[in-house]
Amino acid sequence: MKRVLISDPTLRDGSHAIQHQLNTQQLTLYAELAEEAGIPIIEVGHGNGLGASSLQLGESSLSDTQMLETCRNILNKTRLGIHVIPGFATINKDLKNALDIGVDVIRVASHCTEADITKRHIEYCRNREREVHGVLMMSHMAPPSELAAEACKMQGYGAQGIIIMDSAGAYLPDTVKSRISVLVAALDIPVGFHAHNNLGMAIANSMTALEAGATILDGTMRGFGAGAGNAQLEILIAVMEKMGYETGIDLFKLLDAADTAEDSFLKVPYVNSTSIVSGLTGVFSGFAKPVDRIAKKYNVDPKDIFYELGKRKVVAGQEDIILEVAVSLSQSRQPMI
Amino acid sequence: MKRVLISDPTLRDGSHAIQHQLNTQQLTLYAELAEEAGIPIIEVGHGNGLGASSLQLGESSLSDTQMLETCRNILNKTRLGIHVIPGFATINKDLKNALDIGVDVIRVASHCTEADITKRHIEYCRNREREVHGVLMMSHMAPPSELAAEACKMQGYGAQGIIIMDSAGAYLPDTVKSRISVLVAALDIPVGFHAHNNLGMAIANSMTALEAGATILDGTMRGFGAGAGNAQLEILIAVMEKMGYETGIDLFKLLDAADTAEDSFLKVPYVNSTSIVSGLTGVFSGFAKPVDRIAKKYNVDPKDIFYELGKRKVVAGQEDIILEVAVSLSQSRQPMI
Repeated sequence: MKRVLISDPTLRDGSHAIQHQLNTQQLTLYAELAEEAGIPIIEVGHGNGLGASSLQLGESSLSDTQMLETCRNILNKTRLGIHVIPGFATINKDLKNALDIGVDVIRVASHCTEADITKRHIEYCRNREREVHGVLMMSHMAPPSELAAEACKMQGYGAQGIIIMDSAGAYLPDTVKSRISVLVAALDIPVGFHAHNNLGMAIANSMTALEAGATILDGTMRGFGAGAGNAQLEILIAVMEKMGYETGIDLFKLLDAADTAEDSFLKVPYVNSTSIVSGLTGVFSGFAKPVDRIAKKYNVDPKDIFYELGKRKVVAGQEDIILEVAVSLSQSRQPMI
Repeated sequence: MKRVLISDPTLRDGSHAIQHQLNTQQLTLYAELAEEAGIPIIEVGHGNGLGASSLQLGESSLSDTQMLETCRNILNKTRLGIHVIPGFATINKDLKNALDIGVDVIRVASHCTEADITKRHIEYCRNREREVHGVLMMSHMAPPSELAAEACKMQGYGAQGIIIMDSAGAYLPDTVKSRISVLVAALDIPVGFHAHNNLGMAIANSMTALEAGATILDGTMRGFGAGAGNAQLEILIAVMEKMGYETGIDLFKLLDAADTAEDSFLKVPYVNSTSIVSGLTGVFSGFAKPVDRIAKKYNVDPKDIFYELGKRKVVAGQEDIILEVAVSLSQSRQPMI
């Protein structure tokens, strides 16, 4: 029986799906359900992580402190996790506060080619004796060898695991396999995969990651997450059971939990046409909501915006470019005088 | 460039998702969209195919004649297809009528171990010079060698292609690969795959089928179909383009068509907990609606019904067993006196 660590960012990546408007009742319910089903880690917070609530990225209805304390009060066996992007989250204010509240697992994340910015945050968490994983986002944008070099940096800073994210849902099984294999060979610490479903491959890519040696997987209930959503946790666990992997999660309780959570707040994501183009062009799934909003305002096709964003290779934090692209698409359609 | 024939049963398998209540406006719109996007074949009718409208399986709001004539009047390049299960569809009445209306492609289907019942229907269609494919449903229930033997029978009757259906959404890529490879080796005619998404594998399984030598794939817009739905056609085409397969479908027009059809009538299927259990236990996805209805009536968990149906290895046409199982589950919970 191969053991796999499951981390569930329903209350973090899912925030993207409802513009970061999770409330206390929803957090409480979900934390109770996760504890009951035996989910090892739940990640909580703004879609872009700790300290990311802002005009540019969208404002959370609750502060980081409110969200983390709500879940901390309930969780016992299930560990409390956060997603931390240096630049959004400062060490002295945001990270110190989160660790004081009692966060168990910290994921320090950067764009796939910028691991350098994670050094001080990783070291800070290790010094305070917490479990720290390094995360490389938009990992399809770097070739396997470069990804391995960046991951090795994070390992050097003290990361105890490396997760690569398919932030645009752009991977197919072959590209997952090549990247995970290279990372597993290059690192001495566990390797993980975080899928998105834009090309309908979230479950297949996750299983491929396991076959290639990954031992950490992310999944969210009903796939609740940015864009087309993540790997749907209940399916992931069902398929893993069928394939002989052990996670400690009770599948039946998980299925019941998903039904309850869906009734309460999970907006089920599905793969709409814009999400498909987002996956095809390799643009961050979290752009889906602002792109839809701005497309409507400027009366342009959101798919055309995603195509242009793909050409420009934009990444999270460059949301202002959406507006620029929409304006330019809208003007290019004006009749000549 | 490898050429793949796409057949789209949105207006047939999708009928399961809305209890066979498609109306003339929806059929008309969809046929126009399919024609515009260049979809090679659309399959039209009751969820269980020609002549299947009944109390037991659910009654269509339109007759087979009305549905087929509506689409026939619009289609030009796109060919008109039907799904035919001998036993539901008679030759002299149903099949003769459909061919008189001008159906182009006939799929004659049986349970995976009962190809014998397709002989006369296949021969009738060949005699009238139409394209005929043989379909083996619930194909996960037979091992590869038996499936190949049944497929060879259909080839012997005159079938010009063989499609295996994952009617329960129970396959994983490995099981698709082994079955398709054996079929491709055993047959002289094209082999196809029809996926369902209960275990999140519809797209991955379809791509695996192509790698193993299949040259016919089924997909429906937004995945509209029985249970957790089919392979989502827009994703399938996007991924196939990325992998270098040729289908003749215009991806952009298809994405627009899916948006339009969704606005008009496509109820987007998602993978709910019952669908996952249906895939795990290998029970026909088309049971989802009646199971939900009967579970509610007898106040039992639909997931428990699916587990019991899986143990009994039921197949389509045995819908009466749902009721029996629900009654027995409901009674087993009565307190002893």
